[in-house]
Amino acid sequence: MINPEDNQDTSFIHRTAEKPTANISHYLLGRPLPTADAAHETIGKAVGLAVFASDALSSTAYATQEILVILAAAGTIAFGYVFPISLVIVVLLGIVVMSYEQIVHTYPQGGGAYIVASDNLGQFPGLIAGAALLIEYFLTVSVSVSAGVAQIVSAYPELFNYRVAIALVCVALITIINLRGVRESGMAFAIPSFFFIIIMFITIGTGLFRMVTGTLGTVIDPPHINFHGEALDGITAFLLLHAFSSGTAALTGVEAISNGITAFKEPRSRNAGITLIWMSLILGSLFVGISFLAHQIVAVPSETETVISQVARTIFNGQGLMYLFVIAGTTVILILAANTSFAGFPRLSAMLAKDGFMPRQLTYRGSRLVYSYGIVALAVIAGIQIVIFQASVTRLIPLYAIGVFLSFTLAQGGMAWRWWRSGRLDPNEKRSGHSTRLHYDKRWFIKMSANGFGAFCTFVVLCVFAVTKFRDGAWIVIILLPMLIGIFLWIKKHYSGLADNLSLENYGEPPPYNVRHRVLVPMSNVHQGTLAALRYARMLSDDVTAVHISMEPEDTEKVREKWETWGRGTRLVIVDSPYRLFLEPLLNYINDILSSRQPNETITIIVPHFVPAMRAHNALHMQTAEMLRRELLATPGVVITEVPYQVL
Amino acid sequence: MINPEDNQDTSFIHRTAEKPTANISHYLLGRPLPTADAAHETIGKAVGLAVFASDALSSTAYATQEILVILAAAGTIAFGYVFPISLVIVVLLGIVVMSYEQIVHTYPQGGGAYIVASDNLGQFPGLIAGAALLIEYFLTVSVSVSAGVAQIVSAYPELFNYRVAIALVCVALITIINLRGVRESGMAFAIPSFFFIIIMFITIGTGLFRMVTGTLGTVIDPPHINFHGEALDGITAFLLLHAFSSGTAALTGVEAISNGITAFKEPRSRNAGITLIWMSLILGSLFVGISFLAHQIVAVPSETETVISQVARTIFNGQGLMYLFVIAGTTVILILAANTSFAGFPRLSAMLAKDGFMPRQLTYRGSRLVYSYGIVALAVIAGIQIVIFQASVTRLIPLYAIGVFLSFTLAQGGMAWRWWRSGRLDPNEKRSGHSTRLHYDKRWFIKMSANGFGAFCTFVVLCVFAVTKFRDGAWIVIILLPMLIGIFLWIKKHYSGLADNLSLENYGEPPPYNVRHRVLVPMSNVHQGTLAALRYARMLSDDVTAVHISMEPEDTEKVREKWETWGRGTRLVIVDSPYRLFLEPLLNYINDILSSRQPNETITIIVPHFVPAMRAHNALHMQTAEMLRRELLATPGVVITEVPYQVL
Repeated sequence: MINPEDNQDTSFIHRTAEKPTANISHYLLGRPLPTADAAHETIGKAVGLAVFASDALSSTAYATQEILVILAAAGTIAFGYVFPISLVIVVLLGIVVMSYEQIVHTYPQGGGAYIVASDNLGQFPGLIAGAALLIEYFLTVSVSVSAGVAQIVSAYPELFNYRVAIALVCVALITIINLRGVRESGMAFAIPSFFFIIIMFITIGTGLFRMVTGTLGTVIDPPHINFHGEALDGITAFLLLHAFSSGTAALTGVEAISNGITAFKEPRSRNAGITLIWMSLILGSLFVGISFLAHQIVAVPSETETVISQVARTIFNGQGLMYLFVIAGTTVILILAANTSFAGFPRLSAMLAKDGFMPRQLTYRGSRLVYSYGIVALAVIAGIQIVIFQASVTRLIPLYAIGVFLSFTLAQGGMAWRWWRSGRLDPNEKRSGHSTRLHYDKRWFIKMSANGFGAFCTFVVLCVFAVTKFRDGAWIVIILLPMLIGIFLWIKKHYSGLADNLSLENYGEPPPYNVRHRVLVPMSNVHQGTLAALRYARMLSDDVTAVHISMEPEDTEKVREKWETWGRGTRLVIVDSPYRLFLEPLLNYINDILSSRQPNETITIIVPHFVPAMRAHNALHMQTAEMLRRELLATPGVVITEVPYQVL
Repeated sequence: MINPEDNQDTSFIHRTAEKPTANISHYLLGRPLPTADAAHETIGKAVGLAVFASDALSSTAYATQEILVILAAAGTIAFGYVFPISLVIVVLLGIVVMSYEQIVHTYPQGGGAYIVASDNLGQFPGLIAGAALLIEYFLTVSVSVSAGVAQIVSAYPELFNYRVAIALVCVALITIINLRGVRESGMAFAIPSFFFIIIMFITIGTGLFRMVTGTLGTVIDPPHINFHGEALDGITAFLLLHAFSSGTAALTGVEAISNGITAFKEPRSRNAGITLIWMSLILGSLFVGISFLAHQIVAVPSETETVISQVARTIFNGQGLMYLFVIAGTTVILILAANTSFAGFPRLSAMLAKDGFMPRQLTYRGSRLVYSYGIVALAVIAGIQIVIFQASVTRLIPLYAIGVFLSFTLAQGGMAWRWWRSGRLDPNEKRSGHSTRLHYDKRWFIKMSANGFGAFCTFVVLCVFAVTKFRDGAWIVIILLPMLIGIFLWIKKHYSGLADNLSLENYGEPPPYNVRHRVLVPMSNVHQGTLAALRYARMLSDDVTAVHISMEPEDTEKVREKWETWGRGTRLVIVDSPYRLFLEPLLNYINDILSSRQPNETITIIVPHFVPAMRAHNALHMQTAEMLRRELLATPGVVITEVPYQVL
């Protein structure tokens, strides 16, 4: 008999963390990072711009065109509105960025709309914001990669049949780079992002210079304009609002930095804030510049040539090297926009998972200090979307902006409410919020006004969007959003229920330690692996039974003979199986034992598990333990243990 | 200290098999069959015809057309050869069937070409025959399902875009029916098979009657003839041989019965043999009848209308009900031809697996007494082929016949060699072969001549095939065959190496039982699941250490407090993880222990495993044990055990 209280050292031992040993090195994903590197695995402002801004910047590639497409319904005369509308959108951008600047400083742990809304408005608004952002991240990957591939395919039409494969390869590449860690992905993506920014500024600068010097003409040989209907509509307020809401696609991706503050070097908030301002300045000036020049050169919306292409072709006098650079830069930034989601989605889902609204695995950080599960989950979802929509999802671009403005409104509204409460506090009092302490701020009124005005503006855009874009696809969000929130709550319910179930309150006295332990060792043959399993079994208990399922009498005779030599007195039970079945007779035998067992008796089934030198060899072995586990998992008091036996 | 020799009952216990309990019932696959039903799960002659003959019979739907397509190269004048060529093919069919009749009686355990060739000619010829048959089975499923779907699509062209999906649904249906058991699949397939046979006999009978009464005309409004080239070739010997080899597609599937003898009711060999003869009579008369009538009505080969359709249309005066029956019957029999592979492939691969040439799991029989792994493997391979070739693989039909004739030649050659040896034995002597005893047969010379002649004929056809069809796709077989044999030998090598490795010869004295056993229980929180794991751990050893990875100091404090109450003196080690990593610090700690352990010390890591009531909830739990297993599998002396804890 074992006395469990013998030989025990009951002191608590506290160990500090050490460098992980590099035993899982992988060529594709790079050397595993020691935990001490976590601080170094943060990024500076320039790389941060490349990682988090590519989504926002990529929208300059299509936002002007989106406005022109809507205006075209009223004829070319309406195109004059493209510049004023763009200016209004940039003003909106300024308002939103000011609000997010405050968020970045108030919430240095990151989280953006989800954290801000949960913290200030409550759990449900937080979940709405979280769901809206997740939808945006899902769609951004497939939409932006597909848009980039569409550019490639329009240049090389012979690749059309391979577009799905090309898009999947792009997603796979971005995934692998992201699994290598955020810093390395930033490095890989910085060059193309900056290339795009520089080339676009050169284009706009050249265009403005030529306009001033009077050498800038209009588009030569313009493509065919796409009109929505046959009859021309007048220039109505609805049309202008519709055009405006299409153009707000330029704002998608602005919130990415606020979700990823923790990726920045210390001082995090300051670095993230400065990056946010830089991004908005670049985004705003590129967008206004392109819209202005597009109007000057009388660019037209068309399905055969993009507005960017018309602008570049006119400014650089035809399809020379600079034109090629613009097209290449645009293509690459569209594909890289997907990377913003890869930076944002895993962080957001880890936060949701930590609060119990998404599977807990999403909080798990891999050996390269990134949220590996989240990255892989996003890649899989995006891949499925690409296959289903055959990489032709560009028309989904306007769809998810509604989710973006929903999260803008909730985040800014939450901040406004926060400042309001802060203003009502006693200057010396402090109260704790969800993740940051709320305290009196003497500038609360100004801050509240700024955030409140931002929330109001984005709410108005949200309404405009819902009305003007409902039939274009905004209704899909109305289906997806409640579904996602339903999933969040279902998961939360499971975790809460589990916690209640496992809780030790009212648990009473636990069952005693000393219980009967019976060990079964199923074996088809007597060999070194069987003996290893037997040796392990004998260590666990003195009640060990080896079980042989007899399919061929000759084999059984051999097993019996070998057992005389090697069994060392352990009981052997032979179960006949005339029809050469294995699992069923074994399960029968186990069920027999289970039906006659004593209370508190535990049964352990020990299965030898061959660990071949080559992984491919695993496919050649019966996964007996897996099969038994599937059958016996629901039976209390049965434990299935694989004893690994290293072969070669 | 445990004395392992205590309390042991060393007697051997022999148990007979019992009915498995029906705890895995599944709506789709039906009630699990008790083992005692295995004998009842065999089939009679009529059902056997439906299961094993559909492949062979389906070839009547295209064999005549295959001949006409080749003859068309010499113009319509050459069409007159279709009937004599068909007669020669039917004679060949008779020879092959006679040979297989002998095989069925000599090898009542089934196995066809693989067993016959291994047993009589040696391992390598056996593997060639096995590989050739496997290739045939692989291709039959995708080719026949695709051909059936092509018929559906030609009737309803609007379904063209869904052809891949339709083909996959067909494969899935056939798979599910097969997983229900061979008897039930036979029942499900008997009706359409007999419908096809009856409708074809009515068609041919009506055609002959109308010809005799002089009311049978020629095809009205015949489709456009497809000529191979622009210039007409003469009627050369090569052309006739080419046409002949195309027509031998009619013989594919004839060997299926010999592979599946064990599926038949006792007396197996007799039932299988009678079924084989019935099949060949039906096949031969249908084929000759169709060829004869096709010539009479001057049917032409065409891509827009099949020969069968022309025959039926002419005989039944247009596209009435009977015409529809013929087309529907042909479509269904083409799809059902796939079922022959589902009956043959799992049996053949189980035999190859039993001999160590394929993964051993393929010998595993599921709860419905069928080789579940083999059925699923075939379905997956066929599905991949259908997706890759977009369900348009009809042009692969002639491809795999070369494999069929290779296996015919090897099987018959093996039989001939067997009779030769049998003739040289002393009439009273007996010698053992691989699976049947070789003994003197006084009719050895006649039998040898029959089988030898068969082998010679099929060998000639094989050569004709190789020459005339090489560029059409026969070369693919020349690539696939050695690849498959290479895989067989690689698998065999692994199993042999493993067996040597595990062998107890020269094993010497096994290590002693009494070794140190250390148990680690990683835990993130103290709850009922943790306590269950701890209770199990304390049963295994008196050296138990609980390990907590500390990510948040507050949580750790709670764990420490709860441990005071519930730990009952078990040592608790707390490992700091400032960057909130879980796996890496735990692995470090384990590695530390491993590096300082004594020889012969075993370490067991016990992880609580939540078993939620709903399977979907599994996705919400960290598979800690899986992660640990992946990292520590190669480390000797470490066992990872999950203690299931049933929740709700």
